[in-house]
Amino acid sequence: MASDQTHEFIPPGSRFHALPSPFPMKRGGALHGARVAYETWGALDAQRGNAVLIVTGLSPDAHAAASAADPLPGWWEAMLGPGKPIDSDRWFVICVNSLGSCKGSTGPASVDPATGAPYRLSFPEVSIEDIADAAAEVVRGLGIERLACVIGNSMGGMTALALLSRHPGIARSHINISGSARALPFSIAVRSLQREAIRLDPNWNHGDYDDATYPESGMRIARKLGVITYRSALEWDGRFGRVRLDESHVLGDGGGEDPFGLEFQVESYLEGHARRFVRRFDPNCYLYLSRSMDWFDLAEHAGGDVLAGLAKIRVERAVAIGASTDILFPVQQQEEVAEGLARGGAQAEFIGMDSPQGHDAFLVDFDRFGPAVRGFLDRL
Amino acid sequence: MASDQTHEFIPPGSRFHALPSPFPMKRGGALHGARVAYETWGALDAQRGNAVLIVTGLSPDAHAAASAADPLPGWWEAMLGPGKPIDSDRWFVICVNSLGSCKGSTGPASVDPATGAPYRLSFPEVSIEDIADAAAEVVRGLGIERLACVIGNSMGGMTALALLSRHPGIARSHINISGSARALPFSIAVRSLQREAIRLDPNWNHGDYDDATYPESGMRIARKLGVITYRSALEWDGRFGRVRLDESHVLGDGGGEDPFGLEFQVESYLEGHARRFVRRFDPNCYLYLSRSMDWFDLAEHAGGDVLAGLAKIRVERAVAIGASTDILFPVQQQEEVAEGLARGGAQAEFIGMDSPQGHDAFLVDFDRFGPAVRGFLDRL
Repeated sequence: MASDQTHEFIPPGSRFHALPSPFPMKRGGALHGARVAYETWGALDAQRGNAVLIVTGLSPDAHAAASAADPLPGWWEAMLGPGKPIDSDRWFVICVNSLGSCKGSTGPASVDPATGAPYRLSFPEVSIEDIADAAAEVVRGLGIERLACVIGNSMGGMTALALLSRHPGIARSHINISGSARALPFSIAVRSLQREAIRLDPNWNHGDYDDATYPESGMRIARKLGVITYRSALEWDGRFGRVRLDESHVLGDGGGEDPFGLEFQVESYLEGHARRFVRRFDPNCYLYLSRSMDWFDLAEHAGGDVLAGLAKIRVERAVAIGASTDILFPVQQQEEVAEGLARGGAQAEFIGMDSPQGHDAFLVDFDRFGPAVRGFLDRL
Repeated sequence: MASDQTHEFIPPGSRFHALPSPFPMKRGGALHGARVAYETWGALDAQRGNAVLIVTGLSPDAHAAASAADPLPGWWEAMLGPGKPIDSDRWFVICVNSLGSCKGSTGPASVDPATGAPYRLSFPEVSIEDIADAAAEVVRGLGIERLACVIGNSMGGMTALALLSRHPGIARSHINISGSARALPFSIAVRSLQREAIRLDPNWNHGDYDDATYPESGMRIARKLGVITYRSALEWDGRFGRVRLDESHVLGDGGGEDPFGLEFQVESYLEGHARRFVRRFDPNCYLYLSRSMDWFDLAEHAGGDVLAGLAKIRVERAVAIGASTDILFPVQQQEEVAEGLARGGAQAEFIGMDSPQGHDAFLVDFDRFGPAVRGFLDRL
C-alpha cells in the first residue's frame, strides 16, 4: 500500500494499528480502514503497568529512538533507550505517529480506499482530539488499560491533554513539554502564515500536486518561518552573531551572482533546515496538522475557562516543563497547564528552564530536559 | 518624471533635494541625477539652530505629519506638530525619505537617466551609510550646519547612528528609538525570509515585473511576517485572544468554501495589514532597504567592537528608547546604543518602556513615547 501513497515517509521499524472502521472525526466525517503507525521500546510487564506513551510535535514520526527493528537514531535518541531518561529497561515505551501525518498514520497523503487515490483535501478535518483518540486506540490495542505516563511535546502536549481529557483514567501521570492547553494568537498568526505560504505556491494547486509539482517554495518558507520561531534570538546571537559565510560554504541559490543570495551563517542554517524538510513532508498533511493546533482549546467545554478545562482532568502526578526563551509555546502556557492540573487534584509542578534554544530546547538541551524527565519518571 | 516611475508613491507635499552627481555609493557604483524627497514643519530660526531631523524605518515616506502642503495625517501625526512632543512651534523639523525607497527619493523603482527605464536590479547596492549621506546632503542643502537633534526610529535608528558617525558635528543630540547599532541574527533571519518570499514569487522575475505582474504573493508574506515581528504575543493575547471572525467579517480568500481560509481575528488583522501594503510599496525597493539593515554594523571600523564604534560618535546628549516586548530590535540594543554613546562622552540615557506593542510601540504607544521624546527635546 505504501508505494501507492505519494508523499508518505514511513520509518522501516513502524508497526501499525488498524483503527475501528468507521473512525468518527470530531469536526465531521469518518475514516474507513485508517491506521496509526507506532513503534515500541522495552517490554510490557506482567501487570501491564509500565507503559509510557509519547505523542509528538507536528513533524516527527514514531521513530523516537533506535530499536532492533530500525537501528537508525530517532528524533529523541538522547532521551529514550536503556538507561536513558525514558529508560526502556524499566518502561515499555510507545511512540505514535499522529493521525493526519504522512509518516505512516493515515492522513491526507494516504490512499482513500473508496477512490484508490490519495485523499488530499477530501480528507476530513483533523483535530487534536482525533489525534488523541487514535493514540488511545493504539494503547488499548496493545492491551493497556492504564498508562504509567503520557508524555507530549509541543503539539504532542496538546494531544496528551486531549487524551487525558477525553479518556479519563488512561494515564496515571503526565509530562507536558513545551505544550499548551490552547493556541494563542501569536502562534496562530505564525501557523496561518506558514499555511498561506504553502497555499500561495502555484504548485500547491489546492492540494493537487505530485512529485514533479511539489510546492517546494511554499514549504521552504513554512519551514524557515518554523525554525525562526522554534529557536531564540539569544541562542543565535551567541551561535551565529554576524558571521559571514565563506564563499565555499554558500548554500542555496548562490552568493556571487545573486545580489540577494545567502551571506550570513544564520541564513545558511535556515537553508539547511529547509533542505532537510521539503520533499520529506507532505504539504497537505502539514496544512491539516498545523490547523489542528489553532483549533485546540481545552476551555471549549469549560465555559471558556482554560484552567477549568484543565481541572476536569484526573491524573495523579504531572509536570509541565518549558523553556523561558520559547516564543511559540511560552512558559506561561506550561505554568497554566501545571496550575490547571493541580486544581484538578494532581500533584503538579511547573519547571521553567533557562535553555537558550527556545521551543526546540527539548530536542537539544538534554542537560536540562533529561534530568527533569528522568526525575519525574523515577519518582513514579 | 513621476509618471515614468512605475512603483513610486510620492506624497503630494514632497520637496526634493538634488544629490551631487555623481553620488558615490559605499558598496560600489554611483548615482547620477539622484534626489531625496523630504518635508518640513515649522520655521528655521535666524541662528539656524533649531533644526530637528527625522530619519525613518523601512517603509514610511517623508510625510510624518500633516502640513500646509499636505493636510492628510502623517505616519507620526501624534508626535509631530504644533504643541506636540516634537513641537513644530519651537523646532524646524525635517523628515527625509530614505535613499533607495519608492516614496520620492531615488531608488530601484526610479528611472535611470542613462537608460530611460527603471533601474530595477541595476540600481547599486544601498547601505544604511548611503541613506545617511543622502540625508546629510538635505540638511546642508537647507543651510543647516548643525542639527539640534537627529531622531531615528527602527531602521532610522541605524541611519541616525551612521549619520553621526560619518558626519561629525552634524547634530548636538540624538534620540534613538527602537533602533540598533548593528543587525543581529534573529532580525537578519526574519528579513532574509521576507526577501526570499518575494524572490520566490514567480512574478518577481528577478526584479522585472510591472503592475500586471506585481509579485503580490511574495509581498503579502513579507508584510505579514513583518507585522508578526513588529508586534508582540502579549499584545495579541489581550487584543485578539482566540476570538473568531464573524462570517460577514471574513477578509481574504473566503472562509466558507476554503478549508484553510481566515477564521481567527488575528488572521484578519494580518490580512488587513497585507492589503494596505501590497501594491503600495515597490518590491525591489523593499529588497534593497531590507538588505541594507542586515549589512549595518557600527563595529565595522572599530575592530568588531560595537561599543567602540558607538564611542567614536561625538554628541552632547542622547537617549535610546525601546520597548521591552520588541523582538526585532530588542531593548538590549538600545541599552547598547546609550552605553556606547556615553563612552564617547555623551550625556546618554536608556529608557525601556513596558509597551505591549513590541517594535511598533513608537507608532502607537504615544502615552509612553510622547513624554519621553518631549522631555528630551524640552531639556535641550
